[in-house]
Amino acid sequence: MKLDDLYSELTLNTGAKLVLLVMDGLGDIATPEQGFRTPLEAASTPNLDRLVAEGCAQGRMIPVAPGITPGSGPGHLGLFGYDPLEFQVGRGVIEALGLGVELKAGDVCARANFATLDAKGIVTDRRAGRIPTETCERLCTMLSAKIKKIGDTQVIIRAGKEHRFVVVFRGKGLEGPLTDADPNREGLPIPSVKPRDPRSAKQKKMARLIADFYKLALPILAKEKPANGFLMRGIAHQPRIPVFQDRYKLKPACLAVYPMYKGLAQLVGMQKIEGPQTIREQFERYLAEYENYDYFFIHFKYTDKAGEDGNFEAKRKYIEELDAALPVLLQRKPDVLAITGDHSTPCAVKGHSWHPQPVLLHSRLSGSDKLERFTETGANSGSLGVIEAKHLMRLMQANAKMFDKFGA
Amino acid sequence: MKLDDLYSELTLNTGAKLVLLVMDGLGDIATPEQGFRTPLEAASTPNLDRLVAEGCAQGRMIPVAPGITPGSGPGHLGLFGYDPLEFQVGRGVIEALGLGVELKAGDVCARANFATLDAKGIVTDRRAGRIPTETCERLCTMLSAKIKKIGDTQVIIRAGKEHRFVVVFRGKGLEGPLTDADPNREGLPIPSVKPRDPRSAKQKKMARLIADFYKLALPILAKEKPANGFLMRGIAHQPRIPVFQDRYKLKPACLAVYPMYKGLAQLVGMQKIEGPQTIREQFERYLAEYENYDYFFIHFKYTDKAGEDGNFEAKRKYIEELDAALPVLLQRKPDVLAITGDHSTPCAVKGHSWHPQPVLLHSRLSGSDKLERFTETGANSGSLGVIEAKHLMRLMQANAKMFDKFGA
Repeated sequence: MKLDDLYSELTLNTGAKLVLLVMDGLGDIATPEQGFRTPLEAASTPNLDRLVAEGCAQGRMIPVAPGITPGSGPGHLGLFGYDPLEFQVGRGVIEALGLGVELKAGDVCARANFATLDAKGIVTDRRAGRIPTETCERLCTMLSAKIKKIGDTQVIIRAGKEHRFVVVFRGKGLEGPLTDADPNREGLPIPSVKPRDPRSAKQKKMARLIADFYKLALPILAKEKPANGFLMRGIAHQPRIPVFQDRYKLKPACLAVYPMYKGLAQLVGMQKIEGPQTIREQFERYLAEYENYDYFFIHFKYTDKAGEDGNFEAKRKYIEELDAALPVLLQRKPDVLAITGDHSTPCAVKGHSWHPQPVLLHSRLSGSDKLERFTETGANSGSLGVIEAKHLMRLMQANAKMFDKFGA
Repeated sequence: MKLDDLYSELTLNTGAKLVLLVMDGLGDIATPEQGFRTPLEAASTPNLDRLVAEGCAQGRMIPVAPGITPGSGPGHLGLFGYDPLEFQVGRGVIEALGLGVELKAGDVCARANFATLDAKGIVTDRRAGRIPTETCERLCTMLSAKIKKIGDTQVIIRAGKEHRFVVVFRGKGLEGPLTDADPNREGLPIPSVKPRDPRSAKQKKMARLIADFYKLALPILAKEKPANGFLMRGIAHQPRIPVFQDRYKLKPACLAVYPMYKGLAQLVGMQKIEGPQTIREQFERYLAEYENYDYFFIHFKYTDKAGEDGNFEAKRKYIEELDAALPVLLQRKPDVLAITGDHSTPCAVKGHSWHPQPVLLHSRLSGSDKLERFTETGANSGSLGVIEAKHLMRLMQANAKMFDKFGA
């Protein structure tokens, strides 16, 4: 029996309220340079401490699999209870979501970047000297103006940062994944894309569309310097993901500021709540919307940003900023509250990492691990153990008494 | 390679003695109302403490999967080393075992309860007003007297508590599972049962037998008030489970008091040892039977009962009662002793739960986690980690040096 089917069979409607509070990239490592402390350990967190004292279960979570460093996509899918290995989201889709494109079922997305070609079409710079974002925006506007449709397929072009942009193909009978239109190094021409599954008629149609797109777009860029060409990668459609509300019998809302996280939430069918710009505003909006939803995904970006910058003090400060706002959320304590990261972003790594992120689970039935604080080191001896992140959602449901007994 | 096949291939006969001591529902949670202590933490357990001081490995065990609350069936199958998701036991079988019916291979069991029907056969009370157990026994005796066989199939009817009873069908070519003869709510007629697999001839035969049983039984009950009808659920045969002794090369015995646990032990082919009524008597009998078996499953029910009642003091007291008797068992210390629960039954839940139960493993080779006591909180930082319960049996075998090296 598939475990997810068993969970579905046992799921009860209880009217419970669940909150997942994600401090992006929260996890860190205690290095000698940092005095063997993590930002979470160094931070002053009186409100988290109080929550821990009231009774919490703690543990650590492996975002995908041992040693795997996830991007935001797999990181969040895991937190939402979807196995990130089973439900893979193409990079084109992630980029499009990140740029705020509202995707529809069947859309095929490609991650693209401007490049420099020589007279023979050989790639001489895969990033076109990292052109400024303004140039990228100008080129995308130019392409958009001239290429709106190819046959019956709509083409949506959206500029990203520097040399990056995305292309979304919207039409009937399209499918990914395709191979990349990228030689992966300089000195070679742009290869034609091919279906990953040679038997798929939809992938074949999609590959022809990409070839047609190149035929239309390259002449438009021909006189540009240095961005007279472009590469396309991660060409895939939106994966079919079971809808959150059907899967968990919970009506979900997303309180995120950045488009990428709103997009990931939308991918599983969460309702976006727009407006709040700070974590305090997000918590206030949660209070206002309390009766309208059963599950709230609240996303806090800045811990990850500070980790990416390798800025220990900033990461500590952002944790303290969230802690200071926490009493707003706790004015109406949900039945189940989980606080964690989508992965670790250790300051010493200056990027995402594979280190399991700490997790705190608070409910009337979470019990207490009798730890004094919420920290990486404390979480190591928590009752949740070291688990895969995809299990958190089921533990949250269990804490809300949403599962019937299995077997007599 | 299937892991179980590898274990089998590596298994050696060592003549070691293994004991699994199950304190049913042992695990608990530390809530503020309980002064942040569990019954195990609050109990005075000098003999367990001594055992821990001699060297034990500790950990916590997930009975089935994260968040899943198991019944006694899946809980014990896990402890016996069988994956409870792979080997599912129908509720009819569990109920029959619980009422002490000695099941044979191929028996199909149904969990039944008396109900009230109106003149048109509509269910008006699914539990017939929870008739007294004596009435249930009278009705079952009446049915048993008149329905002994249907065709060549033997019919065994056994009364349970209040409105509950079981029906066992024993004959050739029978198989479950079937759909339920239960509308699941009042106001509807009793639906006919159907094969879960429409291609199974055995399930079709079984569905006809259930229909025939209704035709014979309903007229017998027609004048009863309020129990003039009945519903049947969980209609399934005994699952095919690999025999314990073949799987582990250990001759197993069961020292349990309650029929349900004897039944579960029989399901995997353990020998029941009848007679002992108290835990002290069970331990004494273990001493007497020491040479006759290699593996003893000793079951203590009362920790679960106290948890179900939400009675913290009673649960603490029962733990102390077992602790006081422990020196009897330790007069002939087995080579490997595991002490755990089949699941948690926290007083705050007043029922089974998903919280991982603590486990203690003692052998000459268990090593010591240098904990002072056997408690939930201590077990969180034990060397066994948080593991699935099905792995315990293999760890016990390993501690008995029953596995050859894997690979060179």
